[in-house]
Order: sequence, then structure tokens, then C-alpha cells
Amino acid sequence: MENLDAKDFEGQDVLSLLDWPREKIEYVFRVAEKMEPTVRSRSRSQLLSDKILAAAFYTPSTRTRCSFESAMLRLGGGVTGWESGASTRARGSDIYTKGKKGESNKDTAIMLEHYADAIAMRHDEEGAAREFAEWAKIPVLNGGDGYGPTSEHPTQALLDLYTIKKEQGRIDGLSILHVGDNQRTRGGHSLNFGLSKFDGVKVYICCPPELKLRPQEYEPLDELGLEYEYVDRIEDVLTEVDVVETSTPLVLEEVRGDYTLTAAKLEDVKDNFIVMHQLPRGDSIDTDIDDTKYAKFFEQAWYGVPIRMALLSLVFGREP
Amino acid sequence: MENLDAKDFEGQDVLSLLDWPREKIEYVFRVAEKMEPTVRSRSRSQLLSDKILAAAFYTPSTRTRCSFESAMLRLGGGVTGWESGASTRARGSDIYTKGKKGESNKDTAIMLEHYADAIAMRHDEEGAAREFAEWAKIPVLNGGDGYGPTSEHPTQALLDLYTIKKEQGRIDGLSILHVGDNQRTRGGHSLNFGLSKFDGVKVYICCPPELKLRPQEYEPLDELGLEYEYVDRIEDVLTEVDVVETSTPLVLEEVRGDYTLTAAKLEDVKDNFIVMHQLPRGDSIDTDIDDTKYAKFFEQAWYGVPIRMALLSLVFGREP
Amino acid sequence: MENLDAKDFEGQDVLSLLDWPREKIEYVFRVAEKMEPTVRSRSRSQLLSDKILAAAFYTPSTRTRCSFESAMLRLGGGVTGWESGASTRARGSDIYTKGKKGESNKDTAIMLEHYADAIAMRHDEEGAAREFAEWAKIPVLNGGDGYGPTSEHPTQALLDLYTIKKEQGRIDGLSILHVGDNQRTRGGHSLNFGLSKFDGVKVYICCPPELKLRPQEYEPLDELGLEYEYVDRIEDVLTEVDVVETSTPLVLEEVRGDYTLTAAKLEDVKDNFIVMHQLPRGDSIDTDIDDTKYAKFFEQAWYGVPIRMALLSLVFGREP
Repeated sequence: MENLDAKDFEGQDVLSLLDWPREKIEYVFRVAEKMEPTVRSRSRSQLLSDKILAAAFYTPSTRTRCSFESAMLRLGGGVTGWESGASTRARGSDIYTKGKKGESNKDTAIMLEHYADAIAMRHDEEGAAREFAEWAKIPVLNGGDGYGPTSEHPTQALLDLYTIKKEQGRIDGLSILHVGDNQRTRGGHSLNFGLSKFDGVKVYICCPPELKLRPQEYEPLDELGLEYEYVDRIEDVLTEVDVVETSTPLVLEEVRGDYTLTAAKLEDVKDNFIVMHQLPRGDSIDTDIDDTKYAKFFEQAWYGVPIRMALLSLVFGREP
Repeated sequence: MENLDAKDFEGQDVLSLLDWPREKIEYVFRVAEKMEPTVRSRSRSQLLSDKILAAAFYTPSTRTRCSFESAMLRLGGGVTGWESGASTRARGSDIYTKGKKGESNKDTAIMLEHYADAIAMRHDEEGAAREFAEWAKIPVLNGGDGYGPTSEHPTQALLDLYTIKKEQGRIDGLSILHVGDNQRTRGGHSLNFGLSKFDGVKVYICCPPELKLRPQEYEPLDELGLEYEYVDRIEDVLTEVDVVETSTPLVLEEVRGDYTLTAAKLEDVKDNFIVMHQLPRGDSIDTDIDDTKYAKFFEQAWYGVPIRMALLSLVFGREP
Repeated sequence: MENLDAKDFEGQDVLSLLDWPREKIEYVFRVAEKMEPTVRSRSRSQLLSDKILAAAFYTPSTRTRCSFESAMLRLGGGVTGWESGASTRARGSDIYTKGKKGESNKDTAIMLEHYADAIAMRHDEEGAAREFAEWAKIPVLNGGDGYGPTSEHPTQALLDLYTIKKEQGRIDGLSILHVGDNQRTRGGHSLNFGLSKFDGVKVYICCPPELKLRPQEYEPLDELGLEYEYVDRIEDVLTEVDVVETSTPLVLEEVRGDYTLTAAKLEDVKDNFIVMHQLPRGDSIDTDIDDTKYAKFFEQAWYGVPIRMALLSLVFGREP
């Protein structure tokens, strides 16, 4: 791991952060850093001008799909794919498939291997990205697979971690508060796996009782040695933590006030405190926070472009 | 205004023609003229090869979206975005957003600012493009915002005006007949604002009584000094006007014959007379007009490409 | 026909294989052969870097649309269009078109001519591609028009024929078994027209009685002199034929076992035997065939890229 280079990523999938060592994460960060000038200057390079990305999104996405497409375009590459599963033979109803399941993940994956050089995908089935990766001989980047306890969203987690690193200067030793069900979303799963690779990270979880981690979620965290603790109220730890990452819980209607972050609640936070969100924000962050210095969720969305540029170039064994 | 150049457009939005002086309109025409050879020769330039356009279309569009995409591709640029709002987290239903409103225009606008260098958009909410422009620090080009009395479609109006200029040699002093509800559509609003910037233009309106201009529509026209007059029947002025621009009124079923243009009705029109339409035509223009020398609605669609190429390059401060 | 070159294809449509002579088919094969290295090496050329393809898909498609887009991107070209007819004014419902038919094929075709340099399309109306071609002055490539007895899918048939040629070394003298309703699908119609241009081809058809060829389907085959014969059971000829091309019949639920191909059924087939499918496979091919040496349906999908690259470059009068 000491001498990682782009070739170590070549042809690899990005499906889960569970087994990613810290060194891989930090290597992606260094490449993302090199991508930033292209994004900031609003220009395009030719690093992947000979490549085609299939952006295969079966369920609605704006940030993940558009930032993958933007990353590929900024690197000079071409993009095909779909923005809606209903436009495909896997899902679309026509007179041949009406009432039937449509095409298998295997067949679709092999097809995309033939038409593109990498696949970025979102799917409503837990494990679908892994299934695509089993069959397609090109890199598969998981942009969210389903909503189950083992669903992941590793590129989201990498941009979350990169945001923390850029805004805080470090990840080691930080304390992070998950609000709502963020710790049990696909993005939250991957983020916790990523956080576990750093030293001295403490995770607090503030959520309704029914949203506590399920065995498939806390068991790998226990194995990885991530330190986490439930708290009853946001206010219990808000002034102690460095980062809060909120989510829109499904049960929010009933408990809105308790889990919604407002500017008023941020009065005594630490000076380096930041508010993050994978967005869309739903009711979880009041817009009165947007103008505070703590709001970093829009920057977080921006970091998605250099991170995804880094991942795309690395899976082709390239870097600037 | 005397010494306008591309830099005067750089970073600007194109939201409304209400406050556009004639000089700006004519400057766009001159740049569009320079774009025409690329379109006619079916080739592509590299003027915007370093840029990315987000084509964010929340409601169905074929001409506006495809011609924006075509314009960007002809200039060498890249395109991301969506063809259907249902594919986005702003609209799409998934288990997180089901039954909720989805993402705010603010949040979506800031996201697109991060992923693209300009936004061309259609939205079903009146004022949505202006709202996007308030938040996104990149140029926003309004491709139609809603259906209300202040809705606009300025790039459509610019291509309409360009069509008149190219086909008639001038706009000053012409008389234009709006048939159906064209004068109160988003495209009609912008067109009337544009027409008001030229000298001696006379607008006739032939529509069912319930489609007469509402205060928010005629008040700005009165302020701008556009001369307009209602007529009862198309035939009252058809032989006098230089241009007819028709529309598909919502009430058309009941009054079809009265507002449908047919070749037979064109027998005594002026020699320079032209028929325009923003399309789709619905029942407003009979296909027997297509082969007459008066039909210019297909040319009008074509002019959309050089006009949008001009606008895209200008908002980046560039011209050929 | 002896001295065919790319100029003979320039500006031509690809609507039907009915009147394509063998020489044209073989010319496309030779150009596809020259495209293969670009696809195999996963790179891109600049042969069509000055061109724009409109991929206008009104009904769900994954293979045809994505492989057309991939082909255009591999040749350096740009792509606009739509993946869903619901996103267009021809189909989409908005307050202007709700409850009405939307835009005519004529108007849409002329519009696309203005925005792109070639059109690849799928449509649910039999004859729609031909109608587009009548109006658009740019090449139209039919990616499937409807489901009727004269519907076609010529680019699919060309890739099918190319697959046979590549895998068998020849088409002349081969015997092909259609299973299910393959011989009466749009792809099957075009394939049979193509097969009829080669010498000594024998087609067997195994299908439920209600799926036998209708007059509009067998009459042109009789004119073209294609030799075909119905068989009752797959097993009757399976060990004699060189190729089986299966399909998912609409009536499959009731007769599944009879028309489903399984590895067990392939025990005594000829050594050069291959299984093809235009995909999606539905219930027509058991996955236990995938690992046999006979399975060529995934290769078949791959051949779609060089074939479509060849067709796209040829209709622009170019070849590598």
C-alpha cells in the first residue's frame, strides 16, 4: 500500500468502501486535488477523451448523475446511458415486456460493457451494482444501490470525506454527528465505513429509536472498530462535534422540530464546526443556515466533481 | 450601447426581453449571422469546447431543448442535464421524496452551477428561471417558465425576431398579426417585448374574447409603447399585414375554423407576407400552407440554432 | 454495384433491407471490419467529429439507442435527441397538448433535420421511419418502427448477418432456425430480407400456429426467393441447423417449455452451431446456455457497435 499509483486502480470497480484501506482513500484525495483547477477554471481536459461512460440511472438522481456526467465531460470523455429506467428494456413496458420483469442485470451489464468503457449507475435493488460488476468486464462505479441495510454509495462517501478533509484539514480525531437516518442510508453506510479507516473518529447518532442501526449495519462497524454512540437530542453534543451530517428521515413529519437544524441551534458550536448534507435537504436543514459560515453542503456538492473526475481517471489507470 | 461587444453579455442571464434595448437584440443578430455558416455546412466549431451546458428541462420540449443541445454541440461544448423532471430528485418520486415537494429551485440551481458552466432550462413554474438565476452564479437561459401572465421565452422571441429580420429584411414598420392566444403565451410575451423595441411596429390580435391580454400583459406593452389592436376576424387584416404568427389556442376545438390558417385564406396577402409559428402547430396551420412561399415556420425553427449559438457564446463573452 | 464506394451510401436512409442488394450488405461488413479495432481498443476516432446525431427514441430501447450513441461517440460525433417520447411535444402532455395527438411526424422530422445531421430512431408506429425520411433531408436510420407486419429493424438485421458472417465465416448455404415469433418481429422481417440476398440459405420456423407468417410477411419473401419451412418442434431440426435465432413470443407463458432453448437441448448440435438473440432474451434462452461455446448473443450485441459505426460513417459518405 505504500507505493500506490494509478495502476492499482486500473480496471477496478468502486462498489463499497468496506474494504478500502485509508491509503486508497487518500490517494483519491490527492488526485482530486489535481483535478480541482480544471473545475475551478471551468475548463475541460483531454485526459479521457478516448473513453465513453455509461451513466445508467434506474431511479431519479440529479447530483450523482449530473456530476458523473460533468466529471466525464470535464475530462473530455463521451457519455451515453439513461436518466430513467423506464426508457430501458429492463424496465420499460412495451408490447414484448409488458407485465414481465424485463431484462436481467446480467444481460444489461454485459451490454453496457460492449457500448461503454466504464459504468456509473444507480439502481433500486440492493446489490445491483455488485451484480453488474460481476458480469461487466469494465469498471462499475456504484452511484447508489437500493435502500437496504447493505446498500452503499461509495462515491458520495468519498466526496463527503474529501469535504471534511478540505474544510477541517484532517479527518483523524474528529467527531461527527449523524442526524435523522443518515447513518442508515446507502450514503451513510459508505461514509461510516470510510470514517472507520481514520484514527480517533467519534460518531454520534441522533435519531428516532426505530432508525437505530440494524445488525447488518453495526456489525461491520464493530469489526472495523468505529466508535459510535447514540444521543437523545441534537443539543446533547452539538457544541462538541466538528461535523454534523443530517438526513431527511422518513418519519420526519412527526418529529420535525427535533431533527431539523436551524441557525438558532448553532449558537454555541465550535469555531471549526461544519454542516454537511448529501442533499436533497428535505426538511432537515433550515435555509437560515445557508448564509452562516457553517454551511458546507453546497461546497460538498461541488467536491463531487473533482472526486468523480479522480475516480473516473483512476479506474482507467490515469491521473493528470 | 453604441459600443456593445461580447464582453457586455459575459456572465449575463437571458431571462426576459422586457429590459433588452434594441441594440442588444441587434448585436445577437449579428453574431447569429456569423454562426450561420457552421450550421449550413453541418459542421462544428471549437468556440465553446471547454464549456459544459446543463439543459434542465422539467417539462416536455423538443425544439427548445434539442436546439440548445445542438447549438452547444455545434460549438464543441458538452451537455448534461435532463429531458424529464421526473428523472430528478426535484420531481422524481423515490422512497425519500414520495409525497413531498422534492428539492427547491435554490438548491437545484446551486447544484447545476457546480456541474455546468451555463444553464438552459424549461420549468412549469412562472418565474422559475429568474429564481434559478438569483442563486446560480453562471448564466441562466430561460427556455420557457410556466404558463402565467409574466411567463417568458426570450430565446424563442429572439429567433422569431431574427426570422422576421432575415425574411423581411427589417422589423421596423412591419405589421404583425397574432392569431389565437399567441400574444399571451410565454413566447408571445417575449416576442411582444422584443417587437416594442423596434420603430413603427403594429400588432393585430385576433383571438376569442376570453384570450384578450390581461393587465400584467398589456400594462408593460403600454409602457413600452407597443401599438396593438384587436380584430374580430383574421380576414379583417390578413391582406394588410406582413407577418402572421399563430398559436394553438386552448379553446380551439370550439372555434377551429375561425382561427385556423389555410392556403385558401392566403389568396390576397401581400407579396412579402410570411406565416410563422413557434410550433408545435396543433390545429392552427393547415398543412396545405406548407408548400406555399409564405410558410416560414420551418425556417424559423432552423434560425433557433444560430440564435442559440450566438446567445451561448455571448454569455461566455465570446463570438466567432 | 461492382464498384460501390462510400459515396453510394452518402445521404441515403437505412429504412429497410427489402431492396438492399447483397453487395451493399457486404460493403457495410467491410467497413465494419475496419471499425472493429477502434471498438476493441476502447478508443475513439475523429471521423465524424464535425457531425451531430439525433437519437430519437419514442419507445424503450437499451441496445439500439445506446449502441447508436456509442457508435457516434466512438467516431467523435455529438448526440442529441430523447430517450423517451414522453419528453417531447409529440407525446408529452402539457397544458397545450393534453388530450391531443401532439406533433406530426412530418413536423418533428423537419425539426430534427435542422438540429442534427442524421437521425437514428425508434417509433411505435409502423412506417414512421419512412415517414421521417420522406420529410427530413438528412439520413434516417430506422431503429425499429412499430410492431406490424411491415415493421423493420434493418440495422439490427445487419448486425445479425454480420454476426453470422464473423462466427460462421459465410452466410451462403447456411440453415437458420427461427424460434418463437422471431420471424415475424420487426428485426425478423429485416433479417429474412437480408438472408434472402445470400445463396442457398434455408430458414426453418418453429412457432405456435398463430404466429405463422402473415401474407405481408411471406409474400415479399416468396418474391425474393427465400426458402423457408415450418417445423413442429425445435428438436426436429436443431441438430441440422447452423444458427438458431430465438425470440420471446407473446404467447410464451402458455408454451414456455416448447420454445425455450436450454443447454440440455444442444447436446447433439453441429460443431459450428451458434445461438443468437436480438435481446432482451425474456424466457427464450436459459442462462445455462451462456457458458456454452454456442452462445453468441452477447457477441452479437457487441457487433452492433462496429456495424452502426459503419452505417453512420457511410451515410456521411465516409469510411476509415
